[in-house]
Amino acid sequence: MDYTAQLDTAIAKLHDEGRYRTFIDIERRNGHFPHAVRTRPDGSQQNITVWCGNDYLGMGQHPVVLNAMHEAVDAAGAGSGGTRNISGTTVYHKKLEAELADLHGKEAALLFTSAYIANDATLSTLPKLFPGLIIYSDELNHASMIEGVRRNGGAKRIFRHNDVAHLRELLEADDPNAPKMIAFESVYSMDGDFGPIEEICDLADEFGALTYIDEVHAVGMYGPRGGGVTERDGLAHRIDIINGTLAKAFGVMGGYIAASEKMCDAVRSYAPGFIFTTSLPPAVAAGAAASVAFLKTASDLREQHQTQAKILKLRLKGLGMPLIDHGTHIVPVIVGNPVHTKILSDRLLDDHGIYVQPINFPTVPRGTERLRFTPSPVHGPDEMNRLVQAMDELWSHCALNRAELAG
Amino acid sequence: MDYTAQLDTAIAKLHDEGRYRTFIDIERRNGHFPHAVRTRPDGSQQNITVWCGNDYLGMGQHPVVLNAMHEAVDAAGAGSGGTRNISGTTVYHKKLEAELADLHGKEAALLFTSAYIANDATLSTLPKLFPGLIIYSDELNHASMIEGVRRNGGAKRIFRHNDVAHLRELLEADDPNAPKMIAFESVYSMDGDFGPIEEICDLADEFGALTYIDEVHAVGMYGPRGGGVTERDGLAHRIDIINGTLAKAFGVMGGYIAASEKMCDAVRSYAPGFIFTTSLPPAVAAGAAASVAFLKTASDLREQHQTQAKILKLRLKGLGMPLIDHGTHIVPVIVGNPVHTKILSDRLLDDHGIYVQPINFPTVPRGTERLRFTPSPVHGPDEMNRLVQAMDELWSHCALNRAELAG
Repeated sequence: MDYTAQLDTAIAKLHDEGRYRTFIDIERRNGHFPHAVRTRPDGSQQNITVWCGNDYLGMGQHPVVLNAMHEAVDAAGAGSGGTRNISGTTVYHKKLEAELADLHGKEAALLFTSAYIANDATLSTLPKLFPGLIIYSDELNHASMIEGVRRNGGAKRIFRHNDVAHLRELLEADDPNAPKMIAFESVYSMDGDFGPIEEICDLADEFGALTYIDEVHAVGMYGPRGGGVTERDGLAHRIDIINGTLAKAFGVMGGYIAASEKMCDAVRSYAPGFIFTTSLPPAVAAGAAASVAFLKTASDLREQHQTQAKILKLRLKGLGMPLIDHGTHIVPVIVGNPVHTKILSDRLLDDHGIYVQPINFPTVPRGTERLRFTPSPVHGPDEMNRLVQAMDELWSHCALNRAELAG
Repeated sequence: MDYTAQLDTAIAKLHDEGRYRTFIDIERRNGHFPHAVRTRPDGSQQNITVWCGNDYLGMGQHPVVLNAMHEAVDAAGAGSGGTRNISGTTVYHKKLEAELADLHGKEAALLFTSAYIANDATLSTLPKLFPGLIIYSDELNHASMIEGVRRNGGAKRIFRHNDVAHLRELLEADDPNAPKMIAFESVYSMDGDFGPIEEICDLADEFGALTYIDEVHAVGMYGPRGGGVTERDGLAHRIDIINGTLAKAFGVMGGYIAASEKMCDAVRSYAPGFIFTTSLPPAVAAGAAASVAFLKTASDLREQHQTQAKILKLRLKGLGMPLIDHGTHIVPVIVGNPVHTKILSDRLLDDHGIYVQPINFPTVPRGTERLRFTPSPVHGPDEMNRLVQAMDELWSHCALNRAELAG
């Protein structure tokens, strides 16, 4: 068995399809977001502007967050030293869980090391708690939800993206007495479209199903206190489990679910991905708690964020760029070919110091490869001018079609 | 469908079996490890000594680690702001991966958010890279390895713990041309016994199998530079993939694999658990890199650690306690009943300020419930005296059998 040859084959496949990922080595500069320093493979450096980060509100450089981290490092040291059960539960973790429960108006919250593992661990544990559970999952759900739904071989039904009629058909076809759960997202990050939350909650009521929503691209950014789209739309009380992240708008790291006391207690007690892993460092929990608390009263930041997205979309549309606009903060420009997307991305970076990563299959379907911009309150007018001018110039240079796909 | 009743049932089952977990809320005090402050459910506080943490060498309070974290927070902010592919690769991550590759004498290393996800993501991705792969897995492998082996429904064989004869039987029974991998641990943390690394490598050579070892309870602590048992025994070059953690002896958070450049590249490119999750915060990567680099030259700390474990074992054995001793740093005292274990743990904590968590099923088999002590260089002679006296007193009080199981 020639294992090396098989690795070569697996890697060559990615090169052949133009979707081999090369990580860009960057260091953001605290106090100067969105500016960063890129270190090239040869060791030389370049000043760049990051246009594809998920630190949507710039909280990763907010003094309230950094101070909380410094204080916790000084007080409690580096890591937590254990799993939540074996010496790894601290006042920082408890405080953060209380902040998150409050944020979503739920009885409890449960921290995980990431929102990925929160989705994976929770969704794969629910069939243990509700034997015979059927999970109805939107076809465009995030990889972590897909992994969680698949993992334990429980029953699943995949409904067409945001298609509540299809979801209804699937619900109607199953045993009315079977336990059911509908799993979906509030903001789908690759197209930036919203999930039909209210319609799904109505269906859940009608068919006696639990509801599970991933709000990772919404928490901190939507709702009067940053509780996500479910808060904005007054629907949080109709969702059984809300999944969120501390690594995007909150600017730190980690993930969570917010739910009833009993649901959190059961997941806490039965999910291997929660039980058997070291808890977040105290400093990470402290920074995240400070960020969540701060954003509860920072509506101005949320408004600036939306305004920035609106301006960028308007300007790119004005140039005839094929962008998708569903009214969220995400600005995807469709290129439709992995090679072209890579060329555009490389030239933006090398010639203009603008960093936006190409998004390829399997993150998005083949043929919809794209550049995905994430404007934020830390991007000033000069940065936006430079981005728009560079895109205009490159688009002409590459003779790409402007009108056809423009939204 | 009464979902709440089903949650009640799931939780009641744990209470009935005496294995419902109550997290103890603690805060370690930087500079004063192993001392910590416990916050009781009523909000009152108690000074305690932690005897069950996995920060085995006290690196979680080492100035070299804390300074690196402070500096990175000041330089680069809180979180990384993205996945490794989308703006989340920094010089801190690259530097840490280089430290780890060097530690294990491998071409490359790949960071994950935890060693749990490193195991789960890598082991579940390997069957994609080597179609038809059969994984031979020790029956006592960690939950994260079990999850990874199970996840994608690939072929698996479970061999009896450390039983190379059984492993040979299983290898012989399979198609000689099938791709194979043997997955095991260097130190099994619940009994503290070593895996038969050399014998397994011999079998791997004989049957053309890859080797995968989990060294999470060994890295930093064994080998001249802390490269684990594989380094101590001069066997690292015979292992294809070494899994390790940054959250135990290194005192911070995160996990990794170290392997060939091609293996890391393929896992990096195909593992959803690596691709679709925010990378570690720069400060976490910086703290971990500082810790790994420091421990490469800290043989004195490793010796102190082993000495502490030897002393504690000797003293507990002197009292006739039924402890397991396989010559590692882990000190498990078998109680054999979840209710007794909980009582002992509660009294140690409430009456003596000694914190050691009861270890119950499913972490260990039923009937082997235990107290698991993790002495470290930060535990002084006074702390050890207090622990030994308290155990002596409680053991008599509870009329537990001393001689029967004593090793």
